[in-house]
Amino acid sequence: MGGDHGPEVTIPASLDRLKNNPDLKLILVGDETVIKQQLSSAANDFMDRLIIRHASQRVEMHESPSKALKNKKDSSMRVAINLVHDGQADACVSAGNTGALMATARFVLKMIPGIDRPAIISTLPSVYGHTHVLDLGANVDCTAEHLFQFAVMGTELVKAVENIDNPKVGLLNIGEEDVKGNEQVKAAAKLLENSSLNYIGYVEGNSLNAGSIEVDLIVADGFVGNVALKSIEGAAKMIGVQLKSAFSKNILTKLAGLVAYPVLKSFKQSIDPRLYNGASFLGLRGLVIKSHGGADVLAFKTAIQLAEIEVKKDVIQKISQQVENSLALRESA
Amino acid sequence: MGGDHGPEVTIPASLDRLKNNPDLKLILVGDETVIKQQLSSAANDFMDRLIIRHASQRVEMHESPSKALKNKKDSSMRVAINLVHDGQADACVSAGNTGALMATARFVLKMIPGIDRPAIISTLPSVYGHTHVLDLGANVDCTAEHLFQFAVMGTELVKAVENIDNPKVGLLNIGEEDVKGNEQVKAAAKLLENSSLNYIGYVEGNSLNAGSIEVDLIVADGFVGNVALKSIEGAAKMIGVQLKSAFSKNILTKLAGLVAYPVLKSFKQSIDPRLYNGASFLGLRGLVIKSHGGADVLAFKTAIQLAEIEVKKDVIQKISQQVENSLALRESA
Repeated sequence: MGGDHGPEVTIPASLDRLKNNPDLKLILVGDETVIKQQLSSAANDFMDRLIIRHASQRVEMHESPSKALKNKKDSSMRVAINLVHDGQADACVSAGNTGALMATARFVLKMIPGIDRPAIISTLPSVYGHTHVLDLGANVDCTAEHLFQFAVMGTELVKAVENIDNPKVGLLNIGEEDVKGNEQVKAAAKLLENSSLNYIGYVEGNSLNAGSIEVDLIVADGFVGNVALKSIEGAAKMIGVQLKSAFSKNILTKLAGLVAYPVLKSFKQSIDPRLYNGASFLGLRGLVIKSHGGADVLAFKTAIQLAEIEVKKDVIQKISQQVENSLALRESA
Repeated sequence: MGGDHGPEVTIPASLDRLKNNPDLKLILVGDETVIKQQLSSAANDFMDRLIIRHASQRVEMHESPSKALKNKKDSSMRVAINLVHDGQADACVSAGNTGALMATARFVLKMIPGIDRPAIISTLPSVYGHTHVLDLGANVDCTAEHLFQFAVMGTELVKAVENIDNPKVGLLNIGEEDVKGNEQVKAAAKLLENSSLNYIGYVEGNSLNAGSIEVDLIVADGFVGNVALKSIEGAAKMIGVQLKSAFSKNILTKLAGLVAYPVLKSFKQSIDPRLYNGASFLGLRGLVIKSHGGADVLAFKTAIQLAEIEVKKDVIQKISQQVENSLALRESA
């Protein structure tokens, strides 16, 4: 029910994923009448892999997380997360209110023992392929220990999702020299240097998309990570506006635009943010994927697909196991 | 002497500015032999507006600020800042080591009474024109009071440089709602709401280049501002790489690239970061402008031009005056 467009986007995206992945089963949680209306006859093909689960309430996009938690016990969001908690679903995908989704997920699913705070991780395109980044805004004022835990969790996710053994971990800072940064980052660097993670050192903001060396996972405080992500969104938007304006100036530039159209289209696809939609909440005892609120059908499909991959790769179980190992290692040290 | 290219860049840029601004006088500070060699006969036209001031040392790009301060008392950087202190120069422009430049400027020039910490301010292109942003990395762990002081200083700079009466000030945060953010940002918002500044509220990272509303000045902690700036640099670089690659795929795309070349060139110019080179150190009793270390001649010219404008507009004096007024206002409150 969530996001800027609700079932108009989430249901066509769901049907498309059912069509493309014969192993996928989906439970659509929300207002039964609205869902049935939107599904219409298209659903007939997938009756054996599609369940509608009615929820009488919905969390509004700007509702406070605490109010949603208290007053919306039969919201689509809450019911969907309950399904994950009860083992009836392997993952929950939502385009709804991020704060409420995080608060509800944390309340219902609880944290993995040994992890203090959940973190939001997502992927950005880069000149090397792509980069995973966390935390993107679940936490402000992270301690060194929090940053270290993010690195442990993020490493497991990247290993599973990317099929690589030893992802390169960078710590987001304002310079590459040892003296740079705040106390939390400096202390986190020490923890990472002494760990079994493949820590490559400090990286700067440009490393998210185009640093001088390849990095698979970038760890940051949620305030910093969120600002960086949105700064990149703004830069891409501005560049798009300027490019369009350059081709719209006069009849000659418009003709040039016609000739260049197929190339510009393939360029646009290569950096299409919809192909990077979907952020995972890490640190919880269950899988929750947050789609961008403004997602269209293509973008929401990407978020569902991310859930499919993480379920298949057993990411949550791997993180729990790794966190337990790390703790055991520390206690024996 | 500073920057990645030294006098090969700084001297041609200086000569060009002398040519274009008949009111400008320049003192070139550094190794006299190197400067004279680089100037050669081109300098003859400006003998009356060009002075060479020998300095026997230079601060290396990765030298620690404290070592530079202690051991390089006759560095080009130190001598140039001394000239500002002694009233022999109105501003110092350097492409050298940022940390050393800041430490030296602070040591020699001292702070404006009432300002606790200096801040670095620069300009970014935006869909509305451009946005001024501070702090870009001079300070980590800023308190609410520091952020407030940055807003006071930044407002004076924007008023003077942009010729506007009441610049719109935004506070960089991870959401626009009151509940979002860390304690420092929330407390700074209170100080700004109760001030005479034109405070418009929280803005997110995308507002640096392309927010939903226009903002003239964005205030941030130096860690966050620096990461945001470099994230934007990385995004622009990646987009440039992808665009180039889309036009290089095969003979057809290359032909389309030839047709579109003039448009792509004008697009590139519209977001050319060299036209935004130059960051001002605010909070000091003298004007110091930092150029990007990798600046080429065009970029370094922009930095010199920024100094010319700020001198002409008497920015430092206006900031000092405004800070004094603000303090008087607070004391009387």
